[in-house]
Formats: sequence, C-alpha cells, structure tokens
Amino acid sequence: MSLNLSGVFPPIPTSFDADGKLLLDKMKSNIEKWNTTPIHGYVVLGSNGEYVMLNEAEKCEVWETARAAIPREKLFFAGAGAESTQATRALVQHAARIGADAVMIVTPHYYKPQMNSAALVNHFRVIADASTLPVLIYNIPAYAGIDMDAATIIQLAEHPNIVGVKDSSGNVNKFAEVIRAVRPDFAVLAGSGGYFYPALCVGAVGVVAALANVAPRACVEIFEAFHAGNHARAKELQLEFIALNAAVTSRWSVPGLKAALDLLDDYYGGPPRLPLRALGDEERKALRKIMQDAGVL
Amino acid sequence: MSLNLSGVFPPIPTSFDADGKLLLDKMKSNIEKWNTTPIHGYVVLGSNGEYVMLNEAEKCEVWETARAAIPREKLFFAGAGAESTQATRALVQHAARIGADAVMIVTPHYYKPQMNSAALVNHFRVIADASTLPVLIYNIPAYAGIDMDAATIIQLAEHPNIVGVKDSSGNVNKFAEVIRAVRPDFAVLAGSGGYFYPALCVGAVGVVAALANVAPRACVEIFEAFHAGNHARAKELQLEFIALNAAVTSRWSVPGLKAALDLLDDYYGGPPRLPLRALGDEERKALRKIMQDAGVL
Amino acid sequence: MSLNLSGVFPPIPTSFDADGKLLLDKMKSNIEKWNTTPIHGYVVLGSNGEYVMLNEAEKCEVWETARAAIPREKLFFAGAGAESTQATRALVQHAARIGADAVMIVTPHYYKPQMNSAALVNHFRVIADASTLPVLIYNIPAYAGIDMDAATIIQLAEHPNIVGVKDSSGNVNKFAEVIRAVRPDFAVLAGSGGYFYPALCVGAVGVVAALANVAPRACVEIFEAFHAGNHARAKELQLEFIALNAAVTSRWSVPGLKAALDLLDDYYGGPPRLPLRALGDEERKALRKIMQDAGVL
Amino acid sequence: MSLNLSGVFPPIPTSFDADGKLLLDKMKSNIEKWNTTPIHGYVVLGSNGEYVMLNEAEKCEVWETARAAIPREKLFFAGAGAESTQATRALVQHAARIGADAVMIVTPHYYKPQMNSAALVNHFRVIADASTLPVLIYNIPAYAGIDMDAATIIQLAEHPNIVGVKDSSGNVNKFAEVIRAVRPDFAVLAGSGGYFYPALCVGAVGVVAALANVAPRACVEIFEAFHAGNHARAKELQLEFIALNAAVTSRWSVPGLKAALDLLDDYYGGPPRLPLRALGDEERKALRKIMQDAGVL
Repeated sequence: MSLNLSGVFPPIPTSFDADGKLLLDKMKSNIEKWNTTPIHGYVVLGSNGEYVMLNEAEKCEVWETARAAIPREKLFFAGAGAESTQATRALVQHAARIGADAVMIVTPHYYKPQMNSAALVNHFRVIADASTLPVLIYNIPAYAGIDMDAATIIQLAEHPNIVGVKDSSGNVNKFAEVIRAVRPDFAVLAGSGGYFYPALCVGAVGVVAALANVAPRACVEIFEAFHAGNHARAKELQLEFIALNAAVTSRWSVPGLKAALDLLDDYYGGPPRLPLRALGDEERKALRKIMQDAGVL
Repeated sequence: MSLNLSGVFPPIPTSFDADGKLLLDKMKSNIEKWNTTPIHGYVVLGSNGEYVMLNEAEKCEVWETARAAIPREKLFFAGAGAESTQATRALVQHAARIGADAVMIVTPHYYKPQMNSAALVNHFRVIADASTLPVLIYNIPAYAGIDMDAATIIQLAEHPNIVGVKDSSGNVNKFAEVIRAVRPDFAVLAGSGGYFYPALCVGAVGVVAALANVAPRACVEIFEAFHAGNHARAKELQLEFIALNAAVTSRWSVPGLKAALDLLDDYYGGPPRLPLRALGDEERKALRKIMQDAGVL
Repeated sequence: MSLNLSGVFPPIPTSFDADGKLLLDKMKSNIEKWNTTPIHGYVVLGSNGEYVMLNEAEKCEVWETARAAIPREKLFFAGAGAESTQATRALVQHAARIGADAVMIVTPHYYKPQMNSAALVNHFRVIADASTLPVLIYNIPAYAGIDMDAATIIQLAEHPNIVGVKDSSGNVNKFAEVIRAVRPDFAVLAGSGGYFYPALCVGAVGVVAALANVAPRACVEIFEAFHAGNHARAKELQLEFIALNAAVTSRWSVPGLKAALDLLDDYYGGPPRLPLRALGDEERKALRKIMQDAGVL
Repeated sequence: MSLNLSGVFPPIPTSFDADGKLLLDKMKSNIEKWNTTPIHGYVVLGSNGEYVMLNEAEKCEVWETARAAIPREKLFFAGAGAESTQATRALVQHAARIGADAVMIVTPHYYKPQMNSAALVNHFRVIADASTLPVLIYNIPAYAGIDMDAATIIQLAEHPNIVGVKDSSGNVNKFAEVIRAVRPDFAVLAGSGGYFYPALCVGAVGVVAALANVAPRACVEIFEAFHAGNHARAKELQLEFIALNAAVTSRWSVPGLKAALDLLDDYYGGPPRLPLRALGDEERKALRKIMQDAGVL
C-alpha cells in the first residue's frame, strides 16, 4: 500500500520559550488546532521546524509529541536529514520507531564542492536502502547552498523507496522536467506557497509551505479548486496570498512564521532559537498589515 | 491605442556566414517562413539574436530587414538595450525610425554592484521618457548576471510608457508578485518556453522563447489551449517540449538554437559569432534525437 | 596572560574506520607524530575534522583524546561551533572542561538570508560573553555559504574575549582591511596554505591549513623564513606547495587530506564519513605525483 | 624586444561633461599631470575608463588623445576587448594603428554558461594570433560575472603573444598557482590596489589599480619599497591605502574614482555616463574624509 503524497503539508515550527527550551505542550496544542483544518498532513522538523537547532534527543521528543497529536488519516513526514549519512540513518530509524509515515531527507550540503551528483545519489541510495519508511528528497537551495538538479532527481526516482521530492528551488521548469521523466507515482511537492498553483499545473501533487501553517484553509482551497478544474479561483487565491507567503519565507523566514502564528488566535509562535532573532515591533506591525490584507486576521 | 502584448514571440537569431558576416537574405527568408505560422510577433536582437555581437550599423540593417519582412499584424519588438543610457536612447530612436512596434531594453549589467534598484529605475525612466515606442523591460539573470527584483519591476510599471517585462528568471513566484501589484495592462512575458504554461496560469500574457523559433505551432497551441480552458492539453504540450526547450536554451544556448534551425527544413541557422561556437557532430546528433522525440523532425 | 596565536596550526582530521567508527588511537598516534614537528598547535574539529559529522558525545571523546596527546606548549583550539547559539554554548563549556586553550566558532550559516551582520554579531557576542575560553571566529565561505565581511569582524574585534579570526575566504585585501582597523593583538589567521606567506606580509600572524597536516615542516619554514626576513625563501616555499595545498583543499577536500596522510609513513588517514567519499585509485595516483613533486614523499 | 610589464599602471577614467559628451582636453590634461608622477604607464579604456559606455569611434578618439599625451617611456595599454571575437579583432587593429604598446582584452562574458575554458582559450588565441600587439588578459569577475581559472590562464600563457594577465579576482592563491606554472616572463598584474603588495610577494610584477589614479606616488612607493627589500614600508603603505582603495573600487566604483579626482587639485573627474550615477553630497563628504586620512588631500 503506497502513501498518497497529494495535498497540503505545513512544515510546522518547533515551539520554544524565551530561553530556547522546548515547549512540547504548545506544539501539541498547535497540532490539535491544525487538525481541525483540512490539511493533508505535517512535516515535523523541516527548516521551519529549526531542525538544525535541535539535538537528537530533542528531535525524538518533538516527533513523539507530534505522533501522539497527529491523527492517522493525516500524513506525518519526519524531517530526518543530517550532514552525515550515518547520522541520517540513525534519525531515520528513530522516526520509524516513533511511527512517522515517511521521512524527509535534506541534501547534505556542508562540503558543497564535494556534493556533486554522484555523492548525493550515493547518500540517498544508502538511506533509502536502509529505511523502512518511504523517503522524500528535500531540496532547499536558499538554505543548503546547493541545488539538486533534475538529472539527479530523475536518477534517484528509480529507487522504489524514494517516493518524491520537496523542491524549494521555485524552478517550475525543473519540476516539469522531472515530472516528464519519472514514474507516475513519484511525487513532486512544491516547496513554497508562492508557486503552489503553477506547480500543480505542471503536475506537482502538493505543497510543503510555511504558508500552510498560517493559511491552511486557503492552501487547501487552491488544491481543491485546481482539482475541481476551477483555475480562476486557484489563480485568484494564489495571487492573494503572495505577500503573506513572502512574509513567512523569503522576507522574514522562521521568525516571520512564528510571529504570524502569535498574531493568529489560538496558535503559539514564540521566539526562534538564536542566532535567529524574533521580529521587532515594526516588523510585526508590517506583518499584521499583510495578514489583514490577506484576510487571515 | 495600446499594443496587445499577448501571445508567442520568437526571439529570432541573427544569420551569419562562416566568416561571421551578416546574411540578411537568410533572415528575411526565415521570417517569411515564420510568417506562415500563427506566432504573434517577433523579437529582433534579443540574446538569441546575439545583439551583443553586432555594432550599431549592423543592428539597423537587421531591423530594416525584419521590418520589411514582418507583416503589420505581427508585433515587432526591437531589442535596443545597451550598457549606457545614451547608447540605448540612440538605439531606441533608430528602432522608432525603422518602424518597430516596441523596444525591448535589457537591464544594464556590467557594473553589477552599482546596478541597484535606484540605478535601474533611473535608467529605464530616462529611456521610457525619451522613447516614442513602448518599452518592454528585459530581465535575463543567466546572461546579465543581475536579477531585477519584483519591487523594482512594480515601481517601473507605474511609468505609462513601460508596458511590460520579459522575465527569463524562471521565477514564477516573482511573476505572480508582479502581476498582483501592477496595473492590469502591464504585461508579464515568460522568458523561456520551459515555464510558459505555468506562467500563463498566474497571469502572464505571453512568451518570448527560443523554443518558439523551432516549435512555433506548439507554443501557440499551448497559448490557445490555455485560453480555451483546455489545461490538460496545455500541460501535455508543456511537458512534451521541456527537453527541446532546454536544448535551445540552458543546454546549448544560441548555438543549439541555430543547429536546430539547420535541422529543420527551410530554415537557416548557421554558425554563431565567436566566442560562441557551433555545435559539434555529437551534439547535433543528440539534438536531432531530442527534436525527433518532440515531434518537430 | 594572553595566548600567542602566532604560528602554524594544522586542523587535524578525525580518524574513522571503514564503517565510520571513531578510531581514537589512530588520532592519538597521529598527534604524537605531529608533536615531533615544530608546529605551534592544533585545531581539533574544524572542517577538516569533519565536525559536522560528529555528535556531541563523539566531539567530547575526540577532544579528550587530543587533550591527552597535545603537550601544553602547543596550542589546542577546539572547533566548537554549531548552528544554534545554545548548542554552541554547550560545546564551548565542554571544550573548557576538557582543557582546550581556545575555541574556534564557525559562523552559523543554515538560514543564510537571516545571517546578516547583526545576527552574526549577536551570536558571537553571546558566545564570547559566556565562554571562559578565548574565541576565534571561523569564516569559511566555501562550506558555510556565507562570508563574514570586514566590518563585522572589526566590530567583533572590540570584544575582549574574541581574540582573532581564521579566515578561509582567501581575500587578502580583507585581511589587510581588518588588520588596519583592529587592536594590535587581534589575530588574523590565514585559512589555507595557498596564501599563507602573502597573508603574513600584510600582518596575519599564522595559518590554519590542511596543508600543515601533510607538510608541517614546510609550513613552519615559511613562517620562520618570513620572521627572519628571508622573503625569497618564504616565497619559494609558498610556490612549491601550491599544488599540494590545492590537492588537500579545493581539489579533493577532506578525502584528499586523508589520502595524503595514508601515503605518508606513519600517519593514518582512512576514509571520511559519508556522504564524503574516499579518493579512487586514479585520484590517489595523481595525489602521489603531486606529493612527490612537492618533496613530501 | 619585449615589453617590461612591471610597475604601476593606472586604468584612467574617461572624461565626460554633464551631458555625457567626451571631454578629450580634460583627459589630455589629466594625463599630463600623471606624466609628472613616477607611474610606469597607463591602461586606457579599462572598466574604470567605462569602455562599455563608448562606441568604436569614441574609443579611437580616446586612444588617439592618450597616444598624443603619453610619452614613449611609459607603457600604453589599450583596453580593446569586446563581446564578439571579430569586434575585438577590429578594436585591436585600431589600437595598433594608433600606436598603443599592448592591448588588454577582457574575457567575453555575456553568454556566461557558454564561456567555459575551451571557449575562452579559443577567443584569446584567435585574438593573439591576429594581433600585432602583445595581449594582456583581463579577468574581472565582479563586473564580467565569470572568473578565468588558473588552468585556463596557464594554458593561454603558452601563446607567445599573450604576455600576461591583469587579474582582479583578488585571489592571491591563484596568482601563485599561475606564477608557479608559467614561463618566467609571463606577467601577473594585480587588478586592484588592495592586494598589490602581497601580490608582489608571490611574484606579481605590477598593478593596474584605480587607486593609482588618485595615489600614484604611494603605489609606486609600494613597488619600489618592495624591490628595495623594504617590506616594512611596503606593508605600511599597503595598509594605509586600504580604505581609499576600497572607496574607488568596491564601495563607489567609477563614480568614486571620478569624485576623488575632482577633490584633488588639477585633475578632472566629472560625472560617469548613466546608468552609473555621480556620488551624492554625503558620499563626497565621506570620500573627502577617507582621502584626508590617507594623506592625499
């Protein structure tokens, strides 16, 4: 039985207090609220989950909290990538033990000049061979500083346990190139809410978007309008949420996402861990205005 | 009366012989053949026209040849950008005298660190104030080495004589951001055939694509399928032409485009000017295969 | 009593077996051999030590091994940077407890667009305030994907507990700009053996170079020739070791360094952890030739 | 008889009035003043000469003016590069006819992805074969957007008519790699005053630096101190002029250089051609302070 990777998957933030301590209750409470929305699942410990800020024990705690709160009918992707292949394997085992549905594995990227196509293919194959969970490739050039090209993705798509790619390059041309070449059930997921609808148009099946945390219903509406053939509505929503999407991604990143949650009723955002810094008052004011314009406040 | 910038506009190559001499007859003959296709107009002396390889006198000759061959019902964009504002003004005047319908002005880019938003805004305003022809901004990061951001485009869109942007960044998120913010008749044209259909989906109105030289009918069919609400057909064609589009752009650039024309019946491609080098035999063989797969041979 | 940061400091590799397990005995044995050379100290868990591949417990084991093997007259820098400020603080405390002489802290870099000058300054100040050990900034654009600029370094040099910068940008102009502006005892260390001598010429006081692992005596000879006013000899050696330096840095990185140690008598190189991959036979042959040409084999 | 490429060569700016018209008399007068300094020659129509802003006829006028004003004992490099190989050949012929001593040829760079090593080697060989004047390669990544690597320079250095490289990458490691590999009389010239002294230390023989326009005597003093073995003085001057060098290069570029000349007695700076914009009042005030600190005002 294969997973259905179609849909809208918020990469949820990890909740910290002012001292940077994990607030698992807040995460639980956030998830319970997102559960009332029609989103199709969660990514736990992606970039928006500040996975690079947590140690292994904290990662397990976060995943356990998420597992307890996420109902079985929603997909649970565990962000389990690390710089070394063996650390990634260990995290993937933890994720399996905890009961995640799939793992999302970021491209290793510290030794950039060495991370050529052959090195990346080898890394992902080793992981996919060893993993009992399906593997989703995670490509995020803005943070990783490397961009997995279409040929490498297409090569990796031959592995039966590599089920898709979450690509935050924004390169819709590349999405199309991949989709044209891979097996039909290999899933391309847009990596941001800024190009969700056009990505669907060329064959992407879903989105992992910070925006889906703050506007889950709008994201799902884009998805459903598209599938209903209502392109006019999908386009309209896509354009309406461009500014808010930018606010919680390129403009203010994780701190922007957390501030947006704080501005919403009933969600906890809180501070990011340093060196990320919480938004200042002026930025919060500008963000509030953007949220009002988008109709989420 | 304002121009209709919607549609498919091949940026035609400039024809040279083996010594790099202009072959105006070949250009004329090529245009006559494209005239029999349903394309909506031409860009003469874009990057595919090797505008950086021609002096001012040659540019005028090429435009005059094009003007004589392009029927009035098809739009004629003259690529008239240059590094200095005053050289650009002179070229724009030539283009107007010759009877082009609009000018396409590349971002100046040699002094990259100085070409901030303010410098670009000033350049385009000076040109647009002086030009009797409508101005299309030309953004091409892969060659220019700078990428005009959405905020700058949006600011320039306030000028009544700046009628659109041809953006080759492939950043569909940016297209949407621009389209959301500008006046309704400001035209966003996709700068490559690799994301024509998804760009249309977010509100782009046309494409300037090397691909339109070698597959003009397919490009127009994407456009027409989209406007007929036949998204399935538009998507299908978009995916079918991904590889050929890459062959004449990112993979082999202008030499690839020219080789592709040589492989078609009745078109002249010929060599590019050095330092660009014509494709070798192996590359031509690979290109022929790609063209066969796409059904254009 | 302040540390003397002048001299040659090899950033030693971490020894693994074929399964990626730590080989602390091999590290100890390597250090004992380097102890017989005139190098001035060690960096333990820099990029060449694959610090990103080790968990916290492994890092402590490696440092403890190093502490036991490094004599007190040689400086012991512990590479203690991590992505989060709080994880970095914890590592710095471990390093202090273990008895390192100083910590080397890499720029956090995952959230590149957020890691502006203010965020970096804040991170390093928090660390330097909390650390009982002197702090050396570690700037390595090729891996981190960000480049700390001169103004930020100059600002951080005002902190009494930030004692220097190890800069692998290769930008000697920047070194001079920093040296011109900072207090006299703020140390600029070249981050590669490819520009050690010219860096000394503008006021750098030492080098942290992969090359110093495989050619420790030559590196120290450059340092001593420079201080003896023998510029001709310093230049001669600098040029002689350019190719070997490239082999163990830009060309083959950590795998190249490890292979070079294996080719030397009495040192253990061994494999890197995946996704880094050991050199193949052809590469080892080319490396042997380079080492012979440089006179180290 | 071969040229002596050692020494200090200001890349002089081209003088314009407020309307962008050439002021040849101002250029002549500037050159007459530089002639009274101990500089070793001139680069006419480099990036600081805004060569991209001039048409072919203007270039010839500027060169003729320079030729008439430059005494035979000072070297006259004509910046004769253009995007196409054939336009470059034509410019080289003009430069020869006018009586320049050598040509400086920038890497063609518009079609960046195509400008691989083979394409660059071919371009420079064609030019060097055809040129009656010695050819100096001009590598300037900050403007051209491509960086010729050491291997390509080393390959080109085999051509008897390619006599050196003016490299503005600031990569002193690369300078050493090239110097180690090429014939003894192949000249490496530093491309900025910010690393002149360290470049000399590894075997560069001179500098083409904007700084040499505003501080010609200091630049020559660095050169002479180095050759007299007075490294302390060379270093002292190098550090003293770091800020002024940055002001007329990375910080304010050509507009900064022109403003600095206007602040000096007896030199004409004037405005750059648009899209470059003259410095504002605040910037001029900051520049004056930097010049005072460096002792040139």
